[in-house]
Amino acid sequence: MRNMSALCATALVSAALMASSGMAQDRYDLEPDQAETARMLMDQALDSDLGFSIVESLTTEIGPRLGGSDAEARAREWGVRTGAAMSFDRVSIEEFTMPYWERGEMEITMTAPYEMDIYGTALGGSGRSPRLRPINSEIVYFRSVHDLTQIEDGALDGMIAFVDGEPMVRSQTGAGYGAANQRRRIGWQHAERGGARALVVRSVGSDNHRFPHTGMMSSMDGDWADIPVIAVSNPDADHLRRLHDQGQSVEMRIASSAAWHGDVTSGNVVLDLVGRELPDEIVLIGGHLDSWDLGTGAVDDGAGVAITMAAAELIGRLPQRPRRTIRVVLFGAEEVGLLGARAYAEHHADDLANHVLATESDFGAGTIWQFNSNVNSDANPAISAIARELEALGIVFGNHNTPGGGPDIIPMAAQGVPTVRLAQNGMDYFDLHHTPDDTLDKIDPDALAQNVAAYAALVYLAAEMDVEFRTQDDAGMASE
Amino acid sequence: MRNMSALCATALVSAALMASSGMAQDRYDLEPDQAETARMLMDQALDSDLGFSIVESLTTEIGPRLGGSDAEARAREWGVRTGAAMSFDRVSIEEFTMPYWERGEMEITMTAPYEMDIYGTALGGSGRSPRLRPINSEIVYFRSVHDLTQIEDGALDGMIAFVDGEPMVRSQTGAGYGAANQRRRIGWQHAERGGARALVVRSVGSDNHRFPHTGMMSSMDGDWADIPVIAVSNPDADHLRRLHDQGQSVEMRIASSAAWHGDVTSGNVVLDLVGRELPDEIVLIGGHLDSWDLGTGAVDDGAGVAITMAAAELIGRLPQRPRRTIRVVLFGAEEVGLLGARAYAEHHADDLANHVLATESDFGAGTIWQFNSNVNSDANPAISAIARELEALGIVFGNHNTPGGGPDIIPMAAQGVPTVRLAQNGMDYFDLHHTPDDTLDKIDPDALAQNVAAYAALVYLAAEMDVEFRTQDDAGMASE
Repeated sequence: MRNMSALCATALVSAALMASSGMAQDRYDLEPDQAETARMLMDQALDSDLGFSIVESLTTEIGPRLGGSDAEARAREWGVRTGAAMSFDRVSIEEFTMPYWERGEMEITMTAPYEMDIYGTALGGSGRSPRLRPINSEIVYFRSVHDLTQIEDGALDGMIAFVDGEPMVRSQTGAGYGAANQRRRIGWQHAERGGARALVVRSVGSDNHRFPHTGMMSSMDGDWADIPVIAVSNPDADHLRRLHDQGQSVEMRIASSAAWHGDVTSGNVVLDLVGRELPDEIVLIGGHLDSWDLGTGAVDDGAGVAITMAAAELIGRLPQRPRRTIRVVLFGAEEVGLLGARAYAEHHADDLANHVLATESDFGAGTIWQFNSNVNSDANPAISAIARELEALGIVFGNHNTPGGGPDIIPMAAQGVPTVRLAQNGMDYFDLHHTPDDTLDKIDPDALAQNVAAYAALVYLAAEMDVEFRTQDDAGMASE
Repeated sequence: MRNMSALCATALVSAALMASSGMAQDRYDLEPDQAETARMLMDQALDSDLGFSIVESLTTEIGPRLGGSDAEARAREWGVRTGAAMSFDRVSIEEFTMPYWERGEMEITMTAPYEMDIYGTALGGSGRSPRLRPINSEIVYFRSVHDLTQIEDGALDGMIAFVDGEPMVRSQTGAGYGAANQRRRIGWQHAERGGARALVVRSVGSDNHRFPHTGMMSSMDGDWADIPVIAVSNPDADHLRRLHDQGQSVEMRIASSAAWHGDVTSGNVVLDLVGRELPDEIVLIGGHLDSWDLGTGAVDDGAGVAITMAAAELIGRLPQRPRRTIRVVLFGAEEVGLLGARAYAEHHADDLANHVLATESDFGAGTIWQFNSNVNSDANPAISAIARELEALGIVFGNHNTPGGGPDIIPMAAQGVPTVRLAQNGMDYFDLHHTPDDTLDKIDPDALAQNVAAYAALVYLAAEMDVEFRTQDDAGMASE
């Protein structure tokens, strides 16, 4: 048995080594001039502060830019103005219509066992207090959102529900987000079913600072909460938990004027470097232009906007355009439901077949540590060739079957657009995510430059190489 | 020359070794049972969560406790109740009267070049907007408070002044605080002289989180500001600086209802372990019971309250009381001007001569790294003997001529009370100091236990040893 195990282990290691070192039979080698250009782009990016200057400009000149707001419209103008002053050949805005939610004014105060201000924020899609008068009630404590989902209809009549939970698990990949996010997403549906007048939830974040994390709730068949739903910071939730554990009766006063305000115009900014040989074939990158309203959206997602614009700009300064078109999309209204991404996929329904590869940077500005892909399997050796170039930036290859190129890529990936992903180290990402603390000072210029370098090399090669990333029957791609 | 240098260096090293190892001629050795008891106390403290449970109780059951507020009165009741349930022989409140300031409601919004919420807080002693209506004005930018002090009278008529500056220097000793603090303390006097309608200052803090740091301004001959004075977070100040550097005209809307509300009652809580031989001789330790209103005052200064109460409690559980009385004072209204400390020195003017040694813990809950003293020089060998015991906790001795036993000790030290100081590592202290983020989760229970251990050993020995720390003519003590 022992020998067989050893044999199997050896075989596995050999396979892994072959895969990682590209020693598979179908090894693909870059043209020497392609490799040389990719390396030059990486060197230039590492020496440049272009990415940082773009995110500094966006966050300073525009500030917070909630999807659908006037500020987001100013951000689109910024995108067009900035793109036009760079190397892009085509600059346009593709408008779409969306429902607009605003948080308005909010108060949350603990009133018993004593009075204390609580640090909270209304969640996206939440409702206002009736007649804009404060709600005063004892809180009903739930240890987790699971406990809340177990209540009987009407059991919370007239009360305020408080859903505790654990601070989200810290991980490089952000793996803890989905599970922690349930209390934010679906809590209101059960609180309303129970007859609660308001819902308070522990923030979805990995920090212990006194910032609440906002974020969108999930609609239920298109309906949104009628009641105020407030996320409170982890230290505030800890405080409420301790009082509960002591057997104290906790009361709160909550007022909120959050509400939907009808339809408004948003849009995606589209910036193209037109391909010299295959102008209709598009390699799409981007970030989202909107941010939550509490911070200035530096990490989420000014960074993604800056990384992809800067990477394209470095390519745009080359003596000639790559063979394919490189498109940078600054998506609108991502935070409030991927509205720009859906609009893009709809608007381009007839030419999505020309989108040969897509990826978005929307996981902050930490160093990129991993590269994954999900393309036609015949193109995997070419992906491995790109991966070998990225190793110079400290980026390891993950695997060839990881769907998902970023949130705004989901709708087009669902239509068969192949994707890759450069994964940032997100260990600290959810410390800042959706809080007032998402500001420019949180971005490390050196890490941002490494991101630009990785995008520049990847996108240049994808646009220049004679490789078909798409597949006719999708058989070679994993689906999400 | 080289040999002489080497010789000098050797001599210096020898002297340092003699000093640090206590090999000086006048070496003082602890009685074996005293040393044994001190070590036992340290072991017990390191194994105990008593300190943490006290600060958890104070911050959870009372919450924020502004000097002069009802919450501070509840904190005194908590102190009496908690002290009575511990080993203390005498528990009392010494009341005093003080003027009461409250921040009320405040708004600070950037209104041009675009609208953005600013994270700010009114400074202690600041005024309200006239007729409680918002002040709207362009800001006049000052790179430092020094620049503001140079203006001519009336030069800011009707404007809002913004005083930038550097984030305070980070240091283990908190050395950067005094210099950075000038903009908070005296800025208003020059802004008012210039005719400004409001003053905005960069927070005095070493962090880059979006929390403003509050704190008291300085009065001018007993007068306080008539205008709103708002401290804004470092990231907000950075943002305003970038806009200024771009040549943008920045406008703000400021409203504040901060005001003085006449005289109220505060008090010091006094907890005594009565000495078995010299009950009138007092070794005084303590922290301050009040906190700023934004956080729950865990680090500033729930920690000091907990450390000194826990240390005394461990001594109180010994088979017999030490020779001298050990007094724990939970000072009131420290943050708003050392009012409890002044009241204590006044109330005890006639028996301050019986206070043989005093020290306060008011620099957070970081690990204690250094021990300093300022006592009758004949007692320095005894101090060194104590210092040798504290080395087991990773504490190094500083020197014998460092005045200052903590803020609340200043008034009694000015009357000749000898002091010692156990210096916490304050590298991160000014990240949290006076912000909403000063909450229980910021305290490391292990570091807090090390603090309790150091205080227990020090205070037990000071109360037990047959040493005169006082001097008749103060000749042996440095003055501040």
